Amino acid sequence: MDELVQRFLSGDRRALARIISRVENGTPEGREYVRALFPHSGKTHIIGVTGGAGSGKSTLTGALAGEYRKRGKTVGIVAVDPSSPFTKGAILGDRIRMQDLTLDPGVYMRSMAGRGALGGLAPSIANVVAVMDAFGFDYVLVETIGAGQDEVEIAATAMTTILVNNPGTGDDIQALKAGIIEIADILVVNKADHPAADILVSQLRALLALSPAGSRRPQILKTTATKGEGLEELADAIAEHYQYLDETGQLAKHQEEDARHQVLAITRQIVLERIRAATPDEELEALVKRVAARELDPHSAAEDLAASVLI
Amino acid sequence: MDELVQRFLSGDRRALARIISRVENGTPEGREYVRALFPHSGKTHIIGVTGGAGSGKSTLTGALAGEYRKRGKTVGIVAVDPSSPFTKGAILGDRIRMQDLTLDPGVYMRSMAGRGALGGLAPSIANVVAVMDAFGFDYVLVETIGAGQDEVEIAATAMTTILVNNPGTGDDIQALKAGIIEIADILVVNKADHPAADILVSQLRALLALSPAGSRRPQILKTTATKGEGLEELADAIAEHYQYLDETGQLAKHQEEDARHQVLAITRQIVLERIRAATPDEELEALVKRVAARELDPHSAAEDLAASVLI
Repeated sequence: MDELVQRFLSGDRRALARIISRVENGTPEGREYVRALFPHSGKTHIIGVTGGAGSGKSTLTGALAGEYRKRGKTVGIVAVDPSSPFTKGAILGDRIRMQDLTLDPGVYMRSMAGRGALGGLAPSIANVVAVMDAFGFDYVLVETIGAGQDEVEIAATAMTTILVNNPGTGDDIQALKAGIIEIADILVVNKADHPAADILVSQLRALLALSPAGSRRPQILKTTATKGEGLEELADAIAEHYQYLDETGQLAKHQEEDARHQVLAITRQIVLERIRAATPDEELEALVKRVAARELDPHSAAEDLAASVLI
Repeated sequence: MDELVQRFLSGDRRALARIISRVENGTPEGREYVRALFPHSGKTHIIGVTGGAGSGKSTLTGALAGEYRKRGKTVGIVAVDPSSPFTKGAILGDRIRMQDLTLDPGVYMRSMAGRGALGGLAPSIANVVAVMDAFGFDYVLVETIGAGQDEVEIAATAMTTILVNNPGTGDDIQALKAGIIEIADILVVNKADHPAADILVSQLRALLALSPAGSRRPQILKTTATKGEGLEELADAIAEHYQYLDETGQLAKHQEEDARHQVLAITRQIVLERIRAATPDEELEALVKRVAARELDPHSAAEDLAASVLI
């Protein structure tokens, strides 16, 4: 392990890949790697890129990485696929387009599938991000589908969250309903050449006007990621947002909030693993059968289970 | 409490409303109500209605409830709004259209907002559904926005899950990516009068052809909920699905899976509450500050916290 960590710290990409695989699986060994590397993290600007299907967020993520490369910066990318409870598989789709980036030694990309019900996806992503951070990338881009609890948790890890909107699809309304727009620091209208792009910009502006007074209004930018248009402005807006966080002391506050969030999420995971380990399958099944037969309510059954590991 | 339970069991809607409010808030008192009423539950056909924004699922839910009323059946409706981490408020939107239904004594509707990070929305919904079940509604319709972990958990409670698709929006692809299509028992193409409706039906059929052999193929139906078209067929398809579950023994299996799921979810909730209760705020904050300063990794901090409550 020490040797692999040494190679990692000297910038060996193959060591990075091997460590991420172990960390991603959430094994005790993976945790040891996070423990060893965590003190080296905390220097990267973590950027969340979120948006609905068809918003072009994968293309935008790739194009933004390209812009950073032009500026001589290194970039880690974590692409998160939603959890499917049945296949547990990732739908790769448009990520294939990013392959040209992966040949660049200044870019490292990792696609992550969803995790099971107990583990939770968010702690695992946070660990992979921490490892990329420790490796020394200037930026880590975390690309996710924009909906649900996981999304909000991932946004808690990112210092700057970009919401990618697609003109003419009603995705803006979807984002509003899902509360995603409230966690966005920069709103991007991608496919700026679409006839409805300016309408969407106006709609977003109107929505933002409803946000609470005193809070920083997110910037609205137009890009056409496929043509590389608007990316300089986006990278500048991201830098500006980072500077704002730093100058107002919010960056330090963000690090604490992120830490609190991660610690509680991992605590939950530890306790649940202990419960599963302490409860023989037959015992769990006997409880479940009594609940299914309505002899016992779920809460009383849960109290029984919790009592087996709690003081 | 006994008096309120008695009134509930005699069919008093005001008692139902008061008990749901207590159960929804997740208080210890609310849990006592679930405990008292749970033995009376287990008879209702629970139906999930899910779909993206703009799919017309609220209108469809209302129209389906109307169809059941025509058939002399009673209906409970639980409309779930996504969690907003900032406003904690529900966006009512198109639910207002359902108000005429709420004047019908054979229908009871409840709109639920999201819960905080610790509580989790799903256990709370399951409890409200169990209370409606115990009240004796023939059907309980659970309407949710179609994305994320909560969705999958809610689908685990529903015996029949209907995925509402909207022609011409790409929502079908969104549903595929989110894994929602895999949990659907019936696919509805709403707005059947839309020019792209038949194309969407073909696309869904093609997607379903990819599903594993041996599993039951979901039926695909067209409705125009605003005009009341296709609802008889939908209600028939739902009845047919229930009969299929019953005859193949899957209904009993479903009840067990749902029980297992609920018991584990509540266990997780109990454990978190216990951890928060056992950890003074100063202690948690001291740990968090050390993690934010990269002196301690999140996993080690979580182990410290867990150790304070575990045997």
